[in-house]
Amino acid sequence: MSPGLPFPQAAAALVEIGREAYGRGWLPATSGNLSCRIDADSLAITVSGRHKGQLSVADIMRVDLEGRALDPQRPSAETLLHTQLYRHFPELGAVLHTHSVNATVLSRMVGEALPLHDLELLKAFQGIDTHEIELLLPVFANDQDMVRLAARVARWLDTDPVPPGYLIAGHGLYSWGNSVENAARHLEAFEFLFECELAMKRVSAP
Amino acid sequence: MSPGLPFPQAAAALVEIGREAYGRGWLPATSGNLSCRIDADSLAITVSGRHKGQLSVADIMRVDLEGRALDPQRPSAETLLHTQLYRHFPELGAVLHTHSVNATVLSRMVGEALPLHDLELLKAFQGIDTHEIELLLPVFANDQDMVRLAARVARWLDTDPVPPGYLIAGHGLYSWGNSVENAARHLEAFEFLFECELAMKRVSAP
Amino acid sequence: MSPGLPFPQAAAALVEIGREAYGRGWLPATSGNLSCRIDADSLAITVSGRHKGQLSVADIMRVDLEGRALDPQRPSAETLLHTQLYRHFPELGAVLHTHSVNATVLSRMVGEALPLHDLELLKAFQGIDTHEIELLLPVFANDQDMVRLAARVARWLDTDPVPPGYLIAGHGLYSWGNSVENAARHLEAFEFLFECELAMKRVSAP
Amino acid sequence: MSPGLPFPQAAAALVEIGREAYGRGWLPATSGNLSCRIDADSLAITVSGRHKGQLSVADIMRVDLEGRALDPQRPSAETLLHTQLYRHFPELGAVLHTHSVNATVLSRMVGEALPLHDLELLKAFQGIDTHEIELLLPVFANDQDMVRLAARVARWLDTDPVPPGYLIAGHGLYSWGNSVENAARHLEAFEFLFECELAMKRVSAP
Repeated sequence: MSPGLPFPQAAAALVEIGREAYGRGWLPATSGNLSCRIDADSLAITVSGRHKGQLSVADIMRVDLEGRALDPQRPSAETLLHTQLYRHFPELGAVLHTHSVNATVLSRMVGEALPLHDLELLKAFQGIDTHEIELLLPVFANDQDMVRLAARVARWLDTDPVPPGYLIAGHGLYSWGNSVENAARHLEAFEFLFECELAMKRVSAP
Repeated sequence: MSPGLPFPQAAAALVEIGREAYGRGWLPATSGNLSCRIDADSLAITVSGRHKGQLSVADIMRVDLEGRALDPQRPSAETLLHTQLYRHFPELGAVLHTHSVNATVLSRMVGEALPLHDLELLKAFQGIDTHEIELLLPVFANDQDMVRLAARVARWLDTDPVPPGYLIAGHGLYSWGNSVENAARHLEAFEFLFECELAMKRVSAP
Repeated sequence: MSPGLPFPQAAAALVEIGREAYGRGWLPATSGNLSCRIDADSLAITVSGRHKGQLSVADIMRVDLEGRALDPQRPSAETLLHTQLYRHFPELGAVLHTHSVNATVLSRMVGEALPLHDLELLKAFQGIDTHEIELLLPVFANDQDMVRLAARVARWLDTDPVPPGYLIAGHGLYSWGNSVENAARHLEAFEFLFECELAMKRVSAP
Repeated sequence: MSPGLPFPQAAAALVEIGREAYGRGWLPATSGNLSCRIDADSLAITVSGRHKGQLSVADIMRVDLEGRALDPQRPSAETLLHTQLYRHFPELGAVLHTHSVNATVLSRMVGEALPLHDLELLKAFQGIDTHEIELLLPVFANDQDMVRLAARVARWLDTDPVPPGYLIAGHGLYSWGNSVENAARHLEAFEFLFECELAMKRVSAP
């Protein structure tokens, strides 16, 4: 019923997804943070400032859904952006915040939203079964004040429906899913679509 | 005589080609499907929705040449596009449907066909022994209705000669060969040629 | 207190960072050199002309802070650019000189400095905690005369503050940090930012 | 004195360089061929049509300096382009013919020669010790007639000095050196320089 995983399995899943996503260049220079639901009241999240390609269980800590540490380490300042998603979507299993070059660059180019359409890979997102839709991925202005940034995200989350992700300008992507596997598939699909969009922008019309 | 492989070898070949092609970014986010002929009446094909970089034999099933399941799993909706090729080409050994960024992007840019010429690597396609030809790779409009899409492909297959592949716009590539090795070489050659074409489009004339 | 490492650990750290950075294409064709402080008076540095992806301890030698060999091998001509940094920053632990395509290309395009701003990843640099700054990365003209080149770098080092790196036009990047880990994080951040800058230059305004 | 290697070592070196260069995308779809001098009268060369990333000793054969097979397999049609280099340069140890996307694309764009200058990595070529030179890499028209193509190359080889490589339009690169290691360094340097040149062409002037 619950999408959560016991802490050891949650931590192992984050170590593995960190290794994979770092290897693809999506978590450079200790950037990004990754989380996985444990149960209705807590989640596992990466400790601030760690090398995401070389995580071990000691780099994962528990926080409650308000972002308060349940372990002695310091959670990342961006923990708040994770916990608001788990509070909003009871079925949510994992949140992946990544910093790829393509997400960074597109988020500075497209204004308030990136429209995605006419691409078969949109079907990789849960609940989408055709390429004949337009998905609007919002881009929020970057902000070092997490409360203010979370408030902007909250207003968007109250719209319906929302795609399983958003961009922060010059900063990166938040993506999520009902399990670590789903979130990873959504992340992979977003990054594929970003690369397509940038490739199309690079080539002038025929 | 028959280009087919017994099911265990066919499945092992698809697991391996899935791992390779996923590693190159050609099968992202559970997209694509891969098949290999078993005999005159059946083929092995990937089960719908599986991670193509982590396939095991349990992710491969048998279908007949009309696309009917011979095993309890659900075949992909696109199985029809595979089986029409095996029916059309008795000597066909394998079909690889992939979703690379370059195939996706080019297929949305080039109109009804991608012309390929003056490239030595065209000689990688079976039966071609010079760069001094022009190969026209057709691009079909994307369609969630597989019967309608297969009918458009069928009309093109009846022309002669056809290159060992076609594009679907915003979707990806179908490529094939008389063995898994041949199909893999054709796929690799198409992806190389796509990257060349996109690179040439990116640079303005000298 | 001292940021140095005993020679065997310093050499092992350089072997590892060489393998990593070569694998990413930042040290092609025996280019580049890598150093790590041993103590207040000496450092470990790669011997001239070695394959940086296949270093062993035998490819690492000791020099003093004036660049004089403390071991029988020949230090690289660019050793002088390393030692001036260790003399200038007593807390410096490592210097990484790399030759990526992006550093080479950007350094020939941007004039006297590359401005970096509005990018969250600027926070990867020690002492920076916001994206709302502008970091000016200087670009020095390339020169085979190391004394003359070092003199130009020295004048810039006397300005305050300096980012943990500089470019040489058509040549590459020098980056550094208080430990090998810090220097590696700075290098990774610079290369990420270079890729972003080039990607943005490639796409015309929307 | 002789730059040659006994056949078993020559074959092992070609297997390894094939694996490396295939992994970088420089030998796609069975393209390319690799050779290494055995002695004054013979060389080891890859058999035609083999997968260059999965070579074994059985994929390497011996030919004399006129290109005649000394083993039962069929040498590649392009063997003639290898043997003319060994005849011309008595000190030559290895020839690597590769098909990268960048070599293919640049060779179709730059006319009769690719000028390379103001790049520190030019120093990777044997005998060059400054970036302040201009190296002119010739581009020959592609031709399926190897005798005719070799004659054009021969006229260029008689000029002095020549860089350790040339391009064939829409086809790829020949590069060489006095040992397999030198040839591999030259290949890596050429590919780095090609990537720089293409990156610079992609970005309009600042």
